[in-house]
Amino acid sequence: MPNTARWAATLTLTATAVCGPVVGSAHAAPAAGPSGLYAPSALVLTTGHGATAATVTPERAVTLNCAPTASGTHPAAVQACAELRGAGGDPGALTLRDGVFCTRQYDPVVVTVEGVWQGKRVSYERTFANECVKNSYGTTVFTF
Amino acid sequence: MPNTARWAATLTLTATAVCGPVVGSAHAAPAAGPSGLYAPSALVLTTGHGATAATVTPERAVTLNCAPTASGTHPAAVQACAELRGAGGDPGALTLRDGVFCTRQYDPVVVTVEGVWQGKRVSYERTFANECVKNSYGTTVFTF
Repeated sequence: MPNTARWAATLTLTATAVCGPVVGSAHAAPAAGPSGLYAPSALVLTTGHGATAATVTPERAVTLNCAPTASGTHPAAVQACAELRGAGGDPGALTLRDGVFCTRQYDPVVVTVEGVWQGKRVSYERTFANECVKNSYGTTVFTF
Repeated sequence: MPNTARWAATLTLTATAVCGPVVGSAHAAPAAGPSGLYAPSALVLTTGHGATAATVTPERAVTLNCAPTASGTHPAAVQACAELRGAGGDPGALTLRDGVFCTRQYDPVVVTVEGVWQGKRVSYERTFANECVKNSYGTTVFTF
């Protein structure tokens, strides 16, 4: 193979390797076809300091798609989808991890999860005593 | 520059050009840093056949992030973000396009938009007489 052809091939392979999965998750083709080939799972998660979502300004908000592939601005989309699948799509089923210690300081943090999980609406709100406690439920879903 | 060096440079530039924006949108780093560098805009949009969201099974659900860059499973994320920006983030402000004709058939379709727009919660629900009417409001936001 001439030198340039070899480099061109390398270029293509590298571009595929580098971009492949990212393009795949960013453009996760028909989120759910009209024919309903699969039930959509698309969520938006928010968090903010305060006691109830009604009064709290969301400080962070991320999206999470779990079908057909994991994507979104959630920093650990793949793991969060796996965790939610294990919880039957119910963020309330995520339990406190063993061996985690938090102070008892009361500096409440609200998390909301809204959208659709496998075709069913999700509307979840939970207040944790502080950020550490929030991050102690499950492993990745609330950590954004 | 030797031939290989030139190809290496091309490779880097190409990878940056190809992957730059996509990586940027897929891994839109801290969706909104705790320091509030920018107010988050993250939404989940659903649609289904029926009169009210409470009774309708969402047939499609897509996510849409508009800060810091447009991304999500919405099929026209960039345009939908631009359109929402023009509407001040209020899907209810999207108006019927001129010159669009729909039948008067009543086959209601519900659209919901939930999440956060520039740091404020959004909770929107609207029922359209049929799919054609839904797609006649604005240009891209409801077309998913």
